[in-house]
Amino acid sequence: MMSPAQHDAAVARTSSTVRIVGTGLLGTSVGLALRERGVDVSLHDASPAALALAVDYGAGRPATDADAPALVVVAVPPDVAADVVAAELRAHPLAFVTDVASVKRGVLDSLTQAGVNLSHYLGSHPMAGRERGGAIMARADLFVGRPWVLCVDDVSSQRDRAAALEALALDVGAIPVVMTTDEHDDCVALVSHLPQVVSTLLASRLAEGDTAQALQLAGQGLRDTTRIASSDPELWVQILAANHEPVRELLSALRTDLDDMIRALDDPNAPGAKRAIAGLLASGNAGVSRIPGKHGGSDRFATITVSIDDKPGELARLLTEIGGLGINVEDMRLEHSPRAAVGFVELAVLPSVVERATRDLTERGWRMLS
Amino acid sequence: MMSPAQHDAAVARTSSTVRIVGTGLLGTSVGLALRERGVDVSLHDASPAALALAVDYGAGRPATDADAPALVVVAVPPDVAADVVAAELRAHPLAFVTDVASVKRGVLDSLTQAGVNLSHYLGSHPMAGRERGGAIMARADLFVGRPWVLCVDDVSSQRDRAAALEALALDVGAIPVVMTTDEHDDCVALVSHLPQVVSTLLASRLAEGDTAQALQLAGQGLRDTTRIASSDPELWVQILAANHEPVRELLSALRTDLDDMIRALDDPNAPGAKRAIAGLLASGNAGVSRIPGKHGGSDRFATITVSIDDKPGELARLLTEIGGLGINVEDMRLEHSPRAAVGFVELAVLPSVVERATRDLTERGWRMLS
Repeated sequence: MMSPAQHDAAVARTSSTVRIVGTGLLGTSVGLALRERGVDVSLHDASPAALALAVDYGAGRPATDADAPALVVVAVPPDVAADVVAAELRAHPLAFVTDVASVKRGVLDSLTQAGVNLSHYLGSHPMAGRERGGAIMARADLFVGRPWVLCVDDVSSQRDRAAALEALALDVGAIPVVMTTDEHDDCVALVSHLPQVVSTLLASRLAEGDTAQALQLAGQGLRDTTRIASSDPELWVQILAANHEPVRELLSALRTDLDDMIRALDDPNAPGAKRAIAGLLASGNAGVSRIPGKHGGSDRFATITVSIDDKPGELARLLTEIGGLGINVEDMRLEHSPRAAVGFVELAVLPSVVERATRDLTERGWRMLS
Repeated sequence: MMSPAQHDAAVARTSSTVRIVGTGLLGTSVGLALRERGVDVSLHDASPAALALAVDYGAGRPATDADAPALVVVAVPPDVAADVVAAELRAHPLAFVTDVASVKRGVLDSLTQAGVNLSHYLGSHPMAGRERGGAIMARADLFVGRPWVLCVDDVSSQRDRAAALEALALDVGAIPVVMTTDEHDDCVALVSHLPQVVSTLLASRLAEGDTAQALQLAGQGLRDTTRIASSDPELWVQILAANHEPVRELLSALRTDLDDMIRALDDPNAPGAKRAIAGLLASGNAGVSRIPGKHGGSDRFATITVSIDDKPGELARLLTEIGGLGINVEDMRLEHSPRAAVGFVELAVLPSVVERATRDLTERGWRMLS
């Protein structure tokens, strides 16, 4: 295993004290990652109990009045982010201040409307999280390989702040991505907020009436499309409200397509109806194909499928042999068959090794399914 | 590993010749599974090349005029299923005939309207498939652990046919599920056709305009919700058209919720708006919680998460140690971090072993994340 510090140079780019306000999942995780690199981290939270917990986990030391932080990371709930940022800018006039709220326009507008001097502020958003929050869920490698968006609206005047935040992002293993505040909010509306709403709307159909008979037929497709519908409503009300304009626009566009689909299904034998349905399905194909693969490129990995006995050790035996063949598994999915004693393991590998992997695993007695 | 024959008694319940018409993915897979149990399988396909391929794969022998099958399985595309069923009932008056089309009402209505004697027919639907079709994708264990729905509308008169089909389903490792034709179509509308349409509508939003900037921020949620949107449009036009009434009804109900969400997002600060959003999110939570777990029960498994180095052999080493601890992995998800050298493995295990697994793996030096 590898700690984040090993991903890059062992020396932290961030050299002075980093003050973290808010010791929930994100704040504590930033602290843990920076402490692993030896950065001095001072922690503050409105709740003394939450602060003590984060200190216990090793995310930093309690802040003191004598602290002179170079960088302040505000990691509080979205609805109080602007107020806390303003207070930190006042309290630490020499420091750069950022916040990590997942919608950026509202925070910026609140600060501007309040007349706060923003020459030391830059909003940002680490694209990482977990289904549950709190310091107890924090981890030093939460941000590893994930984008950390820096919202830069004016490159010339914001260069220094952006450089300091880029250093912070790299220190915690994240990939800094620069875009404007509005671009950020539009982007997350599409790749995060829209899927959340759509998954919620789909899953809601399962909550109505007696669906037990139908759900005994549920397969992997239903499970995958509804997984994120189990997210925390309280947090998501804040996020959707804060980013309501682009989300609303995307939902309206989706509703136009939905209306087309409903109209076509009114009478699928009407002229043009089947073509309309096929057009929507093809457009879905095109959309999926645009999602980049694991390593940021647009190529997809090839999939090989192996049937294995559903008992302890079988999966390990398979992966041991695959490891022995020098084949790296880029992604894996364990497909369950309700009530069955057999599982199917789908392994994503580089297309160039598919033939060899299939041949070698077959020779070793594994049942390959494609 | 375990072949389907080992799931149950080694002797097939189906003793006489089974005739399979249509040697695509499903027909060939039924043939392969029955041949593994020594059942005599005669194959027919409108395409001699497709037939020869299925014979080469070992799914059965070419049908002859002398065949007297006890059971005929019609596994042809949905739009020709009724015609082929009618022809088979005429050609083999002593045999029971079923078809495996994924929507059943249309096939039954076509047969009834054509005045076909249906005393030897029973529609059915194995809930199995793959993203690509054809004999080349067939596998003997395609049906293992999956439901095979038998559409029984009149138990007293259809008992014998149902028993014969139940035997067939069990012989290929499937779980026979009895419901009426209309119940079947309603059920698959909810658990299969609705998710397909919703995933398509979501993925379509990615196909419009320049989404490259947004998609560099794409995470697992977007990938999971859009995966099935890559399904074959030609097949799905047929399925959605054939089941248009219940699908249309579900989409209309979803549109009502969508309109509520859009209205609430118009002005999230209006009285009741946040409550409306929270209500929809909570309803999504409730829907997901109704989906049964892997083994058909409604309990969920507990999840433990381990951070591993993204290199050959690490996953195997982890699973070997877990196997050595006697812990069965019920489900697994490999969470990728684009461009990162670390992966997170989420393992679903019985809640009763979480504490022990966490302690033992930590002791062995693994980095546990929850």
